[in-house]
Amino acid sequence: MEEEVVLLDFWGSMFGMRVRIALAEKGIKYEYREEDLPHKKSPLLLQMNPIHKKVPVLIHNGKPICESLIIVEYIDEVWKNIGSPLMPSDPFHRAHARFWADFIDKKIYSAGTKVWKTKGEEKPKKEFFDILKVVEGELGEKQYFGGDTFSFVDIALITYYSWFYAYETLGKFSIKAECPKLIAWVKRCLQKESVSKTLPDGEKVLEFVLLLRKFYGLDK
Amino acid sequence: MEEEVVLLDFWGSMFGMRVRIALAEKGIKYEYREEDLPHKKSPLLLQMNPIHKKVPVLIHNGKPICESLIIVEYIDEVWKNIGSPLMPSDPFHRAHARFWADFIDKKIYSAGTKVWKTKGEEKPKKEFFDILKVVEGELGEKQYFGGDTFSFVDIALITYYSWFYAYETLGKFSIKAECPKLIAWVKRCLQKESVSKTLPDGEKVLEFVLLLRKFYGLDK
Repeated sequence: MEEEVVLLDFWGSMFGMRVRIALAEKGIKYEYREEDLPHKKSPLLLQMNPIHKKVPVLIHNGKPICESLIIVEYIDEVWKNIGSPLMPSDPFHRAHARFWADFIDKKIYSAGTKVWKTKGEEKPKKEFFDILKVVEGELGEKQYFGGDTFSFVDIALITYYSWFYAYETLGKFSIKAECPKLIAWVKRCLQKESVSKTLPDGEKVLEFVLLLRKFYGLDK
Repeated sequence: MEEEVVLLDFWGSMFGMRVRIALAEKGIKYEYREEDLPHKKSPLLLQMNPIHKKVPVLIHNGKPICESLIIVEYIDEVWKNIGSPLMPSDPFHRAHARFWADFIDKKIYSAGTKVWKTKGEEKPKKEFFDILKVVEGELGEKQYFGGDTFSFVDIALITYYSWFYAYETLGKFSIKAECPKLIAWVKRCLQKESVSKTLPDGEKVLEFVLLLRKFYGLDK
């Protein structure tokens, strides 16, 4: 049977980008369907993800898989003999990778959102850097989060880089000045075509964030 | 090498109970170390889970694994040839199980906490039942969430049952009246010794919740 792979996504979603990077790492061909966010959601999205109604959704041979980290693990399990493995093979290292991807999910999105919603306030800035520094501490002197190769935790985190310029502009700070090792890791990740071809330009994301600020009534 | 398995836990934690059920399902012997919550945390807990500083932590041959669902997956992967598998073998069904366990994690704890913190208010009650009914809808006519056998999603959810009596007493409602199929599923789960021997008595949990209300300054 020929594989039918469809991705419901939105260009600026750091969650959707994770799935695009994973599919690129495995070399999987797929149909990309763009959602028109934040204004409306397609009937297909509402049908395929009735619980959360969010992108990304991977539809594989008609069956939907939701939630970005779950999709990345799914891609790694289904296409396990294609490309490099995204998850470590050892159960302890797998648990460790899941722990850090979960930490990123629980902490960075909401801290980053507070930064662009508040424009340069001290408390959200401190909270954002407290979290980034914990993540940078976990990276330590390693090349990638899992060691010498790009894998699960790198995918979970690198997509936020496309939002860094927006966070920096609206938060009035420099991430490189505070977290130089993290930015060195970003540069290593950007050498991978799966990453550099997926991440949108920071200025385009900033424009979208300015539109979001209007959408939420924060700017006129 | 003899396996050294230690669990840092607290009797009333629905997250810790998940790990105890998984260990019981696999028949793993372990040393149980009780934390004195909510008053203090042991130096070992702070050392083994410096990021979240929360129970449960499974220490396996000296290495800590944190976050209950990650620990349950770890137990299933390490002791995969012992007892019944806790995760489905098919990648789509695995992703589906992870999705629902994640939904339970994201929704039920906070909704339940609002119920016992607000004592019978309408809005938290509605939110709580909206979530429970989504979960009951996913169960449908199945015996267990994964089909005919007790597995990952059942473990993720059943531990909340020990808190149902506290939710009902403080929320002034009956879960059985609203979600009879869910309570029928609870009774099936309780037939398993791994569950019935792990879950504490509802009245003991209610006493603890009343203590928590005092701890948070909600009661004198």
